[in-house]
Amino acid sequence: MQASGPSPALFFDTATAYQRTEALKAAVELDLFTHIAAGHTTAEKLAAACGANQRGIRILADYLTVVGFLRKEGGSYALTPDTATFLTRQSPANVGGSLGFLLNPTLHDCYTKLTDAVRKGGTAVSAEGTVSHDNPVWVAFAKAMAPLMQMPAELLAGLVGGDRNKALRVLDVAAGHGLFGIAVARYHPNAQVTALDWANVLAVAAENAKIAGVSDRHHLLPGSAFDVNWGGPYDLVLLTNFFHHFDTPTNESLARKAHAALAPGGRMLTLEFIPEPDRVTPPPSATFALTMLATTAAGDAYTFPEFERMFAAAGFARSEFHQLPPTTQQAVVSFKT
Amino acid sequence: MQASGPSPALFFDTATAYQRTEALKAAVELDLFTHIAAGHTTAEKLAAACGANQRGIRILADYLTVVGFLRKEGGSYALTPDTATFLTRQSPANVGGSLGFLLNPTLHDCYTKLTDAVRKGGTAVSAEGTVSHDNPVWVAFAKAMAPLMQMPAELLAGLVGGDRNKALRVLDVAAGHGLFGIAVARYHPNAQVTALDWANVLAVAAENAKIAGVSDRHHLLPGSAFDVNWGGPYDLVLLTNFFHHFDTPTNESLARKAHAALAPGGRMLTLEFIPEPDRVTPPPSATFALTMLATTAAGDAYTFPEFERMFAAAGFARSEFHQLPPTTQQAVVSFKT
Repeated sequence: MQASGPSPALFFDTATAYQRTEALKAAVELDLFTHIAAGHTTAEKLAAACGANQRGIRILADYLTVVGFLRKEGGSYALTPDTATFLTRQSPANVGGSLGFLLNPTLHDCYTKLTDAVRKGGTAVSAEGTVSHDNPVWVAFAKAMAPLMQMPAELLAGLVGGDRNKALRVLDVAAGHGLFGIAVARYHPNAQVTALDWANVLAVAAENAKIAGVSDRHHLLPGSAFDVNWGGPYDLVLLTNFFHHFDTPTNESLARKAHAALAPGGRMLTLEFIPEPDRVTPPPSATFALTMLATTAAGDAYTFPEFERMFAAAGFARSEFHQLPPTTQQAVVSFKT
Repeated sequence: MQASGPSPALFFDTATAYQRTEALKAAVELDLFTHIAAGHTTAEKLAAACGANQRGIRILADYLTVVGFLRKEGGSYALTPDTATFLTRQSPANVGGSLGFLLNPTLHDCYTKLTDAVRKGGTAVSAEGTVSHDNPVWVAFAKAMAPLMQMPAELLAGLVGGDRNKALRVLDVAAGHGLFGIAVARYHPNAQVTALDWANVLAVAAENAKIAGVSDRHHLLPGSAFDVNWGGPYDLVLLTNFFHHFDTPTNESLARKAHAALAPGGRMLTLEFIPEPDRVTPPPSATFALTMLATTAAGDAYTFPEFERMFAAAGFARSEFHQLPPTTQQAVVSFKT
């Protein structure tokens, strides 16, 4: 395209962006990256390994080369370092399975009704969207997203600090896969963690606690975070990727419940997609708001000043903002007293 | 993200790329860009103008700012020059309506079955995909894509050259919206153009010829390009965005039919997405092959050496390759003798 005149390039790129998602999904479903890692680097060999057609594989692999997942030299395909790390079964950091949640039909359908969601100001699929009681999407979430959450969980556990020889009572609200509480349990040998979520989701968290070898310090509190008695007192309440599903009054009442469940000197740890007050940077946190519009009645990607106000209204003495590089999420540490 | 270590950023960006498409579609459906152009630049005013919810508009407009369609200053949104040119009703170059074809459910459904298409080596939706007889998707195409084809049509007509005072007999094969033949008719005041396509599609071409004021030199030849007698002889046969739907033997037989219909000294003009022989550059032509895999039984984005061989096999003396900047397509001029 000419650098000078106006260009419809962004329009085309965006109108066809969904094709990128489908190409990635096809590659993961066909185990294409894994087979390249195993040495099947030509279209002919890949087709045999994937149980697919050679022309089909050639066109798909060329496409994946253009969008950046592969390199092509002569007739051979090679993985980029990122693809080798995150998209092959040989790698412990493989996140390919997270497509099972990210492209779950429940979420995908919400986006096909996005125009209606903009008209309405909230999800157009149902009254409550994905946060409806016992929505099975959260079991898919708990199962699929654990590998992607390993690194944020370890970084969040690093924010806990304190004396690892002392007891630490932890409540993991809307635990999902349970990885955040489990990471704290691994980091603090004297931590006792209570994971709160719907029973069908907690089964996934319990399995992950077993794999991590912390089952004896990982306890289950089944039910809705809004209805169940949180017990306590706790030294730490974790609220990870939960506030974004709700409106400000709901979040204030959740934070109040956290404040009440904390012992004096206790802290609430919030993990979130927190855009700058301009709401258009950084991109991963800023764009997340659209997913909340599409999938929930009143959720949002809240800014730190908004969280500060909510948590102050709930009684917290002060809140601290933390980036968690290299992840694209942010954290808030809020002090009860 | 850290520049040093491996990053799942491309994975996330691609897994969620479909959201960009849906956001653009919502903006066009809500006339958001047009309302900004008319001076409704805050979320509050835009919501009123679009008949939508203010929170919904704020989240959508922020998202469109992040992906590059808008700029945001304080609480106000502004159009980029590209958005003003290509996505507002005030602009004669508005291409927003092309989403009616680009996101047509018929095409979209083909992509949801992409994994099966890779396994099979061709579209998984039906035996023939979108090139089945009288497929209504081509009426949608003819109606929606005309604004996007205006510039390529004018550039292609520029390749015709020759003496504009002499008669020029033109056959426009699979004419669709008819814009290529119409552009030649406008460029050559003595051209007589015959547009060949299914009758329901030709109705759109005839309407466009009327708008362009060339109806008296624009004739209709209804039917399938494969079955109907092309008549002739012609000085020029146009084959625009047609070969990519078929396999090499089919294309050779089409080119032979073109060769037979041409007068001595006649030329065939081909407009196509023609990647370099590496098949991974330039991106717009290289990625187009995936759409042919998803939507047709055996179509492809052919390279120039492949077209040269097909056209030589069909009897053409020689073929010339042309870029058509600033469009992202390419052209081939083939000489009968």
